[in-house]
Amino acid sequence: MTSSLSGMNETNQASTATVKESTIRMMTRLAQEHNAVNLSQGFPNEAPPMLLKLALAHAVLSGRPLDQLEQSSVTTEESLIKSLTDLLVTTTAASTTDDTGFTSLLTSTPSDVLNQYSPPMGRLDLRSSISEYYQRFYDYHVSPDDITVTLGATEAFASALRTVGRPGDKCVVLEPFHELYPSQCKIFYLEPVFVTLREEGNCWKYDPQELEDAVRHARILILNSPHNPTGKVFSRQELQHIVHLCTRYDVFLITDEIYEHMCFDQHHHYLIPKEFPEMKSRTLVCNSIGKSASATGWRLGWCLHPSHLSDSYRGIHDQLAVMSPHPMQYATLSYLKLPTTYFDGLAAKYQQRIHTLSDALLLAGFQVIVPQGAYYLFVGYRNVPALAGMTSMEAAMYMLKTIGVACVPGDNFFGKLSDETKNKYLRFAACRSNEDLAEAIKRIAKLTVHK
Amino acid sequence: MTSSLSGMNETNQASTATVKESTIRMMTRLAQEHNAVNLSQGFPNEAPPMLLKLALAHAVLSGRPLDQLEQSSVTTEESLIKSLTDLLVTTTAASTTDDTGFTSLLTSTPSDVLNQYSPPMGRLDLRSSISEYYQRFYDYHVSPDDITVTLGATEAFASALRTVGRPGDKCVVLEPFHELYPSQCKIFYLEPVFVTLREEGNCWKYDPQELEDAVRHARILILNSPHNPTGKVFSRQELQHIVHLCTRYDVFLITDEIYEHMCFDQHHHYLIPKEFPEMKSRTLVCNSIGKSASATGWRLGWCLHPSHLSDSYRGIHDQLAVMSPHPMQYATLSYLKLPTTYFDGLAAKYQQRIHTLSDALLLAGFQVIVPQGAYYLFVGYRNVPALAGMTSMEAAMYMLKTIGVACVPGDNFFGKLSDETKNKYLRFAACRSNEDLAEAIKRIAKLTVHK
Repeated sequence: MTSSLSGMNETNQASTATVKESTIRMMTRLAQEHNAVNLSQGFPNEAPPMLLKLALAHAVLSGRPLDQLEQSSVTTEESLIKSLTDLLVTTTAASTTDDTGFTSLLTSTPSDVLNQYSPPMGRLDLRSSISEYYQRFYDYHVSPDDITVTLGATEAFASALRTVGRPGDKCVVLEPFHELYPSQCKIFYLEPVFVTLREEGNCWKYDPQELEDAVRHARILILNSPHNPTGKVFSRQELQHIVHLCTRYDVFLITDEIYEHMCFDQHHHYLIPKEFPEMKSRTLVCNSIGKSASATGWRLGWCLHPSHLSDSYRGIHDQLAVMSPHPMQYATLSYLKLPTTYFDGLAAKYQQRIHTLSDALLLAGFQVIVPQGAYYLFVGYRNVPALAGMTSMEAAMYMLKTIGVACVPGDNFFGKLSDETKNKYLRFAACRSNEDLAEAIKRIAKLTVHK
Repeated sequence: MTSSLSGMNETNQASTATVKESTIRMMTRLAQEHNAVNLSQGFPNEAPPMLLKLALAHAVLSGRPLDQLEQSSVTTEESLIKSLTDLLVTTTAASTTDDTGFTSLLTSTPSDVLNQYSPPMGRLDLRSSISEYYQRFYDYHVSPDDITVTLGATEAFASALRTVGRPGDKCVVLEPFHELYPSQCKIFYLEPVFVTLREEGNCWKYDPQELEDAVRHARILILNSPHNPTGKVFSRQELQHIVHLCTRYDVFLITDEIYEHMCFDQHHHYLIPKEFPEMKSRTLVCNSIGKSASATGWRLGWCLHPSHLSDSYRGIHDQLAVMSPHPMQYATLSYLKLPTTYFDGLAAKYQQRIHTLSDALLLAGFQVIVPQGAYYLFVGYRNVPALAGMTSMEAAMYMLKTIGVACVPGDNFFGKLSDETKNKYLRFAACRSNEDLAEAIKRIAKLTVHK
């Protein structure tokens, strides 16, 4: 795992100059400007569970964690509503006793905790709850000392890359990829090396030899399963091969598991350090509640790191961003205690939406490889007459301006492929509300008319 | 401003291996463990203004920005309480109409916006409000296009360093410093160059020649005024000199202005791009509501960047951390509209606390240089008999364990100085509630008894 700054090649060095704004997030802006149904950026427009929102409102207003007695009683929507209403009554009473007018607007409660700094690695009770979560879903024991609460999976990932990567190190990224991975590599002067997932019998597959050739010279491999944008869920056999390569070539694995609960049919999510204990010392698991709790705006994620890297990981995280917002940390305690039925229900909910959207896209002539997980459709547009001759950016702009549906151009997800291959796909996010999807489907039908 | 990876020296490269957890935040942990009054980490234990908390609770529960009609009526504590109470009643009604038991716990509101991703650079209405804030306090016009909302000043600072710095670049840091600056330099492979502030006639001063020698070979200068830990507020004359050096040697200035409203007596905070327009193209201003709104746990900050750097700054920020929590962004709109009396009141509030604590420290034998701003006391302990022969870490641990007051050892704030100079100071944060300060003062008196 040797590396040095001098090992960095010129191309990479030059490319570090430009880390661009996300194309995906740009499409969201354009969707608003053009009044298009936004199926570009992958975030829901349904709220987090009510219990979670109430817990957050309570944390902010009271400023204090619940004591043990309260904790046992204030655990349902109803009890939280009661408790919040009481808080508001107290506040009203307090503000009316103060007759100085303006000043009463600015009163502040003493002994506030939850609106202030938490420990940078996250509240202990939250890290313990995350540990219990892994026990519940994976029968896996991880110490709270090896968990750091982060500002979403994005910062979890950045801190992971900086913890194990050094300038010039090669980092294997499977393409199509989320643009975050190569961009963060650039931020920390790592060199992304792309290995391609190809369509093969209604699946996305990598070439084992191509992967081995890349891993042989790398320091880091990035794994995202369920995979954005393809919806691929890596099989146990594939993971076994990846693990084999990581141990053989002494490579760190950084995983992005934010869609872990969205695996369809017989497909299953495996937690690497549980399934392959030999990987515990070289795997960093990044996760977040953003997608599964429909709370993408909360910035609450975490990283499970090997014990021997805990100090360095926490040092980076602390100095880069300090800590995840404290009220969100406290509210997430409620989230992690939701019944298993909630988490199990996520796959059914999003698979249903994927089916609905998929039918409409097929009808319009798109080529659909059925996703095994996550909540995206990464579809070929070459057989859609209106889009056939276009680059993927042109096709996305046509969808936006003429059809009124925002999606993401496929070339955004590729690094090394030829222009022809890059320009075959569009990504649609199926995570929006049923109302939005119905409207999008109506608009997509316009493509069929044009045909 | 040439720089290259090969320009990075060996020492710096080696030092990048270790970015440690913050000592300041470690002291907070120890304070809790030892039941000490926590005057170490600089965060208040008083809540943000009630209006701000209500605005946040409302944003989270409703999930929607207020429409124009609501905006004009829901702008006071009272109206927000009323509106929140109504929201809770609606929620109760909705949940009782659903008789499926558990499912009602998990209901979610459609059309949620404020709990989801915002544009990565921050909501436009918030950036416009920040622009108005600079108009109000500094008569300075900055376009919302040149403002990015960040996850606190910490991430604002990290993104600024990465935007203008390249590996091996020298970055001038005035010492004593907040540990964040050299640590973030290490994260991005920059080389901190320390210039010393020295006690001189009850003030902290730098040597102009020493500063010029450092700036001459640097790419970046970091300026924090009001200054943590010393409480120095840089005079207009000093700023004029710093500006002269930056323009002469083609150096970027990154400022940390989180204590801007806490300037005492005749001391005044100057906004560099306003006072010295020639600096507009080379100054990045980092700020946050954490300290001035008593909301250190919210992660809401921003950066003003030169227009020609806006795209690159936003690219880095986006890929590093995406965005500041969306509900906090919305609530901050209320904060930025608080009357000027609120902001003007901050200096008086904290100066009073500094006076109180300062008196107690003087009585115990500490040497106090009167702060001109911020909310810290950086005091010499060599004349306190119980601490005289100790290193600053030993002194801090004695204060923690024997006296029951947590502070921060002075050596944490120095980079290049001799052990003897490093080990002369302790930092006490005077930002805690009057109750906490009273208890701390009682405990500090124990030192006098020992004397």
